[in-house]
Amino acid sequence: MRIGRIQIDGQTRIGAFTDDGIRDVTQGYNSFQDALSQPEAAADVDGEILDETDITYLPPTTDQNTVFCAGLNYEAHAVESDIAVPERPLIFMKLPRTLVGHEAPIAYHTQVTDEIDYEAELAAVIGEPARHVSTEDALDHVAGYTLLNDTSARDLQLSLQVGDDDMMDWFSGKTMQATTPVGPYVVANEISDPQDLAITSRVNGETMQDDSTGMMIRSVAELVSFVSSRVELVPGDIIATGTPEGVGTFQNIQLHPDDTVEVEVEGIGTLVNTVEETE
Amino acid sequence: MRIGRIQIDGQTRIGAFTDDGIRDVTQGYNSFQDALSQPEAAADVDGEILDETDITYLPPTTDQNTVFCAGLNYEAHAVESDIAVPERPLIFMKLPRTLVGHEAPIAYHTQVTDEIDYEAELAAVIGEPARHVSTEDALDHVAGYTLLNDTSARDLQLSLQVGDDDMMDWFSGKTMQATTPVGPYVVANEISDPQDLAITSRVNGETMQDDSTGMMIRSVAELVSFVSSRVELVPGDIIATGTPEGVGTFQNIQLHPDDTVEVEVEGIGTLVNTVEETE
Repeated sequence: MRIGRIQIDGQTRIGAFTDDGIRDVTQGYNSFQDALSQPEAAADVDGEILDETDITYLPPTTDQNTVFCAGLNYEAHAVESDIAVPERPLIFMKLPRTLVGHEAPIAYHTQVTDEIDYEAELAAVIGEPARHVSTEDALDHVAGYTLLNDTSARDLQLSLQVGDDDMMDWFSGKTMQATTPVGPYVVANEISDPQDLAITSRVNGETMQDDSTGMMIRSVAELVSFVSSRVELVPGDIIATGTPEGVGTFQNIQLHPDDTVEVEVEGIGTLVNTVEETE
Repeated sequence: MRIGRIQIDGQTRIGAFTDDGIRDVTQGYNSFQDALSQPEAAADVDGEILDETDITYLPPTTDQNTVFCAGLNYEAHAVESDIAVPERPLIFMKLPRTLVGHEAPIAYHTQVTDEIDYEAELAAVIGEPARHVSTEDALDHVAGYTLLNDTSARDLQLSLQVGDDDMMDWFSGKTMQATTPVGPYVVANEISDPQDLAITSRVNGETMQDDSTGMMIRSVAELVSFVSSRVELVPGDIIATGTPEGVGTFQNIQLHPDDTVEVEVEGIGTLVNTVEETE
């Protein structure tokens, strides 16, 4: 089952993405979090097929959730970043207000940054509360998978000057308003092994990243388990699992207004967004 | 006016803290965010005085909000930390699930940390949306002030080993479940100058921090303005303004189960919580 959040005629709906089109399954659930805890129940909801020309894709999460992102979780990306692999997962956060849906603009806030970059990521979406879960049990708490483009304001992220040193600035670099695409929907009960999927990104059609989720340093299950040792994960929370090598900054490539970025993961789909200059 | 969130008989209510006691003003508002945007309207709500023996204090914010914390915002605290003052505000975040109210236990997760520490902070609570606001206009978007104890798992925060280097770990160090007291309520329209207030912390009655909010490097207004240049601030968001010198770790002092921590700021009140060992 593939479920997501969409807006149509100003109303937010829960959609099941089927071979026949996007079916409105809102009436079958109390909330989107409820849908994530029982995605297969969408098959029993008798809703209409929506006109896709009228819909806006929303991030498949809610205002009460958080995105927990793993930094430096692919060896070759750590190497291109010239940073060693952290002794334990390095986690930073993105807020609901940082997110946008499939086909929405990626906000390029030229007033505060002049270097933004793409990062293709596989994202796990939580379906059942998870607190102190083991690696073995972790995937039982995952509703399914989606795509995330962990865009970064590199000039801000990589260089917060503190005396003679530089510190990473995760807030300014990663959390700005409406910068981070996620979606289009959550793929539930289809992915048998999240560590064996092709992952790619393209900018204006040119392939920039091309790797396998098998190259993650910490697996999806390990990351879910780790985050759950710090906080309780709740339905709708997202674990973004890090990006493979090939980001722009280390090749002197930046995104510009009107650039189109695609993130694709095998078995899930493609997340497409275009950069737009804004305040 | 002093307004906050409380729980009584399993129900969440909005309370006005008056000389006569805590008055239930829930019926006067659509939400707590609504109350923050017009706190004085509580005076016109005809609600009953609640029995204080039955109430539980909740954090004066909502599940849709975020706490934006300023690190190293008092010169003497930067000196005791042996870190220079950052070129621009250093912001990290705490989640709603990280917060607890006045008189609630501070969770000491001994499974993952063995050093927790207190930090007394003045916290500004947003009452009107703020995006790209100037320093001059910033305080017009603040509903009022509350207290925050920015507890930290120091062993995790100060040392994430990355090859031969150490990185700050803001997630593990600052964001753990139910670790951060905030409250008891929001003091609106009483504080004429937030940069001229005595701020203290006490552990088991002994004074540990004793300073003035006048010693902040960036003022409340500057911090609100800065954060609003990255994201839109919404009613209920909290800006925690950093802690003065005197935290435990640089004196080899740690908190232990059953320790009581008080945070007091002149004109606001006292936030009292006791450390409790938990998973």
